[in-house]
Amino acid sequence: MDLLLLAPLGSIVALAFAGFLAYRVMKTSEGTEQMKKIAAAVRQGANAYLKRQYTGVAMFFIVMAIILGILAYLKYLTPFVPFAFLTGGFFSGLSGFIGMKIATNANARTANAARTSLNSGLRVAFSSGAVMGLVVVGLGLLDLSAWFYFLQWFYRDVADAVRIQNITSAMLTFGMGASSMALFARVGGGIFTKAADVGADLVGKVEAGIPEDDPRNPAVIADNVGDNVGDVAGMGADLYESYVGSIVSTSALAVAAGLGINGVTIPMTMAAVGVLASILGTFFVRSGEKAEQSVLLKALRRGIYISGALIAIISYFLVNSVLGKEHIGVYWAIISGLVGGILIGFFTEYFTSDTYKPTQRLSDTSTTGPATIIISGISLGMFSTAIPVIIVAIAVLASFYLSGGASNFNMGLYGVGISAVGMLSTLGITLATDAYGPVADNAGGIAEMSHLEPEVRKRTDALDSLGNTTAATGKGFAIGSAALTALALIAAFKDEVELIVKKENMEFAFNLSIMNPQVLIGLFIGGMLPFLFASMTMEAVGRAAQKIVVEVRRQFREIKGLMEGKAQPDYASCVDICTRAAQKEMIAPALVAIAAPIVVGIILGVNGVAGMLAGATVTGFVLAIMMANSGGAWDNAKKYIEAGNHGGKGSDSHKAAVVGDTVGDPFKDTSGPSINILIKLLSMVSIVFAAFILHNSIFK
Amino acid sequence: MDLLLLAPLGSIVALAFAGFLAYRVMKTSEGTEQMKKIAAAVRQGANAYLKRQYTGVAMFFIVMAIILGILAYLKYLTPFVPFAFLTGGFFSGLSGFIGMKIATNANARTANAARTSLNSGLRVAFSSGAVMGLVVVGLGLLDLSAWFYFLQWFYRDVADAVRIQNITSAMLTFGMGASSMALFARVGGGIFTKAADVGADLVGKVEAGIPEDDPRNPAVIADNVGDNVGDVAGMGADLYESYVGSIVSTSALAVAAGLGINGVTIPMTMAAVGVLASILGTFFVRSGEKAEQSVLLKALRRGIYISGALIAIISYFLVNSVLGKEHIGVYWAIISGLVGGILIGFFTEYFTSDTYKPTQRLSDTSTTGPATIIISGISLGMFSTAIPVIIVAIAVLASFYLSGGASNFNMGLYGVGISAVGMLSTLGITLATDAYGPVADNAGGIAEMSHLEPEVRKRTDALDSLGNTTAATGKGFAIGSAALTALALIAAFKDEVELIVKKENMEFAFNLSIMNPQVLIGLFIGGMLPFLFASMTMEAVGRAAQKIVVEVRRQFREIKGLMEGKAQPDYASCVDICTRAAQKEMIAPALVAIAAPIVVGIILGVNGVAGMLAGATVTGFVLAIMMANSGGAWDNAKKYIEAGNHGGKGSDSHKAAVVGDTVGDPFKDTSGPSINILIKLLSMVSIVFAAFILHNSIFK
Repeated sequence: MDLLLLAPLGSIVALAFAGFLAYRVMKTSEGTEQMKKIAAAVRQGANAYLKRQYTGVAMFFIVMAIILGILAYLKYLTPFVPFAFLTGGFFSGLSGFIGMKIATNANARTANAARTSLNSGLRVAFSSGAVMGLVVVGLGLLDLSAWFYFLQWFYRDVADAVRIQNITSAMLTFGMGASSMALFARVGGGIFTKAADVGADLVGKVEAGIPEDDPRNPAVIADNVGDNVGDVAGMGADLYESYVGSIVSTSALAVAAGLGINGVTIPMTMAAVGVLASILGTFFVRSGEKAEQSVLLKALRRGIYISGALIAIISYFLVNSVLGKEHIGVYWAIISGLVGGILIGFFTEYFTSDTYKPTQRLSDTSTTGPATIIISGISLGMFSTAIPVIIVAIAVLASFYLSGGASNFNMGLYGVGISAVGMLSTLGITLATDAYGPVADNAGGIAEMSHLEPEVRKRTDALDSLGNTTAATGKGFAIGSAALTALALIAAFKDEVELIVKKENMEFAFNLSIMNPQVLIGLFIGGMLPFLFASMTMEAVGRAAQKIVVEVRRQFREIKGLMEGKAQPDYASCVDICTRAAQKEMIAPALVAIAAPIVVGIILGVNGVAGMLAGATVTGFVLAIMMANSGGAWDNAKKYIEAGNHGGKGSDSHKAAVVGDTVGDPFKDTSGPSINILIKLLSMVSIVFAAFILHNSIFK
Repeated sequence: MDLLLLAPLGSIVALAFAGFLAYRVMKTSEGTEQMKKIAAAVRQGANAYLKRQYTGVAMFFIVMAIILGILAYLKYLTPFVPFAFLTGGFFSGLSGFIGMKIATNANARTANAARTSLNSGLRVAFSSGAVMGLVVVGLGLLDLSAWFYFLQWFYRDVADAVRIQNITSAMLTFGMGASSMALFARVGGGIFTKAADVGADLVGKVEAGIPEDDPRNPAVIADNVGDNVGDVAGMGADLYESYVGSIVSTSALAVAAGLGINGVTIPMTMAAVGVLASILGTFFVRSGEKAEQSVLLKALRRGIYISGALIAIISYFLVNSVLGKEHIGVYWAIISGLVGGILIGFFTEYFTSDTYKPTQRLSDTSTTGPATIIISGISLGMFSTAIPVIIVAIAVLASFYLSGGASNFNMGLYGVGISAVGMLSTLGITLATDAYGPVADNAGGIAEMSHLEPEVRKRTDALDSLGNTTAATGKGFAIGSAALTALALIAAFKDEVELIVKKENMEFAFNLSIMNPQVLIGLFIGGMLPFLFASMTMEAVGRAAQKIVVEVRRQFREIKGLMEGKAQPDYASCVDICTRAAQKEMIAPALVAIAAPIVVGIILGVNGVAGMLAGATVTGFVLAIMMANSGGAWDNAKKYIEAGNHGGKGSDSHKAAVVGDTVGDPFKDTSGPSINILIKLLSMVSIVFAAFILHNSIFK
């Protein structure tokens, strides 16, 4: 049997199973009239946002496709590139769209199910998360397979090696489309969600002293919409992009490593194996009706571990049969990625969950006010970067040398790429545990706004808190895989340049030494980019939040009877402000990400670009972890206080912790996760523009 | 004439002029009895601290000297290394000590002079700053000259090339001693000063609502002591280390560049020229008796610009006569460093001074509470990294290619080194404008505590505010020069390794490609180190500040009549707590800095070490700028509000801004500046342990 057929097969199974789960979720009831009304409002806001976003982004895609078309016309690129770019963007966007659809339909259903028991709530929420996870991997494999088979057919008369090169080159462009879409979705969604959240909290919780998700707060629907467009649609597009990015970059490295078509088979079939293992894993996420939170967390983890174990077993036979005994080291590279991913997830949890010391100690510092909890939170985030860096370092070293990098350098690079694929192979189920968080968060909001019994809110809070932990774990996983993928992409960039040089008989040889000033300067500029990017996205959140603050204050002031619950706030205006702001604000950061490699390339040449990519990957990795973990820890330190420690809700400690949480919001949900995409998009753009840069740079 | 004689000559002139200025400062009156009493208390605290610190650090130096002695015995090092190490540490410590001495004697004198006029106050404060600046450069040149002439004599029978190599190698160790001392001084002093400051503010200003520097606050003397041991002694040691670091690393690069002894002459004589130009520059720092703040700033700047212009002119003839017309490109490398330093200073001012938009806009965000000003401040700091990175990038590119790097690679690296020397050549006067800040700050405290007329406090506030600007400028300058120096040191590390390989006939060739996994992993680990280091130092401040908070609260509670001004607080206990905490807390970060290159080296070899150094330099540079500028902007945003904007002192905006300022304190005065030293110390340690690493690493 042609093992590559596993890829389309896995894709179909994933999509079919996602359809089945979605059907099952939709069959459950949305609860009371009030709940239905609120859910409909959230849905409507999210739809309106995505519609506007996709319209705006479509313009960008058309412009980029035209630019790529011109470059293709000038022979800098193959003619498929513009189309591959468009499909990548389309499927990435579609992943986010479907995820958002199911999430906005599952929120009220989760709240309603939580009226029965905690476990029922978990099952609805987790199922909707699983739909999203499986759609992402299913669509990823679908798009990859379609392009692969089409190009196999198109280049059927070309020599094997050249054909594979053409295929992988086109597929990398497809990755650039996915990355661009992901960037817009993450940045735009991230700005939307955090502007609404920060704005709602600042006026509602801090100034007016009303609880979170109180229906009197005009920004509360926008906040719930934000969870869906940022944490669901944005994350879906993001991980879609990581997923295909790791597969296409590894495939692209197969040629130089001398593995030929077998080297392309491995990442794609590995991914298919991961899909099947993830589906099996979801069946293990269940527990008794009366389960406690810790039991639920164990249930979620069990699913991931079982999927991981399955992958570890199957991939041994896969590597053995496709590449043979002499390349069994590739298997160990897969394992190092798989284990690395799980370890990063664990340590992320350690640093951000309030069941462990670091976050508990962070909450202690709230007793001396907001300044100390801010200092300690930033410090915690910075400190927490050490372990993931060491884990990635070991994974890189192990996968490089175990797959034979000492004797065949390119084989080592392929090993690094495949370790990223290994890390991401559990994505179907990891993403499920992650994407369920925003659904639970929304369910809590709906419970509050619908005045359900306090017991229900308690249950949704437990789900939400669990969701915070899995979200943090998921973020660690996303960042770790982004770093490995970015490294594989840098290697792919080098390969691509060398292919062009060879094809066009150019006189050029890389000098990638860190002492080469072009590389060195590239490192500096690349190292600065994540900071610049984080600043731009945070600033954007700040500006948008400021607008929400003004609007909420205005409504509190002008709408008579609002605070007494006698009048309705104008929810739609807040949704509208966030939508407009997100659309406007996402443009500048996106342009930076796309323009940087081209500008640096024109000045410093491909050596400089390689340096820039390395610098951005290193700093971006560290900064993204720091921002995600600081944010996660602040959030949970606040929850820890709300659980009754240090004076509980309403105390000065709590107020200080809310400041920490508010600062953490753009850290963990806007800037941090956007950096993941940034570092990959930079590489993708560099690869697509490699020929252009080679021909047009000042310093060669 | 032997131009090299300029170095000892410059040294003697600098020290003599510093002595003259110190004499002039000491001749002025310390003012009222109360002022004398307070000044004596500050002096006593600072002396006690430095005594304890130097005792502790001496232990470290003895242990390190023994380790280096053993390595020398094992032939990994020349026998001079332990002694050079000790003298470097000694002179660095001495610079800080003398600076601290004059600063603690000038504070009351400045306050007293400010009773006459703003300009009189400035002159006393600036003179004491100039003492410090000149002592640093004077001692630096003294130590360098002494070692140079001694080793010239010692190796008189050895061939020229080998002799110069031996000399520069020994001098690099001397740099490591200075770096180690600087690290302890910066970290320990930084922890002391910010623990006192944060602790005093948190309880005094925020909780008890008493003004800054109120004598009822038990931590107020510790706060003033801190300014001296952190911002003066710490900075003195720091810049001493930058100064000699840039000179010795450039000298070390002279051999490989093929310039021989002339290549060593240039940086040393350049430094001497800078000393003389700085002295001349100080004469231009004066203005009419009734001058306003903006006029004073112009006066300070005039001094720097005139010094810079003099250096630009003289160094042309210097390069021309020593290296000849064919190497006149070296002159342009000097100019690119000189101009780069001034530009970085200017942009630092732009981002942190409240006369410009960024800080004004930051203060606007205080109206929506502490969370928004924190987000915006971090964002501002991150954004502000872009321009200095681009300036350094251009300086590196220009100095590399203008000095002929395209045809002679090592000549280009020498150019990068000399640009660092160029940047630091104005140190004598730059440091003077910088070091005067803490003196003014102290003067304000003394004015407040001695109940001088409000007019005096206004004047010292004006001086202090000016000092904040110059301190920020100075920090930008310190960071920029640290980046260039670190690059020169990395090149020196590479040279040193290649020398050893050649001398011992080893089989080893560098592979510094960023695709080499050792280098890549080194980059990651290096990129993480500044974050880890910043975290450790901030955490240390937090812990120490917490202790101060507890102590101040205790005194407020237990000492009857304290708040009514009828009883004295126990100042000494706060000084003691800070001293103990700083001593204890500075050990762990210092060990990280010294152990990291050795551990990485043993595992990843010299390739990995080079990667680590590059990664640390890139991330460290960006992070240090971010932290310094965020901190500076918060401080001045607070001052802007205190000047009457957004509701002025006591308003909610002001409270929010105080939170920002408090977070900024460890950013700008502990972690940020310590990172400068970290990146250079890492390189120095790598160089000294190069032979050991080469022989004992797992991956070669």
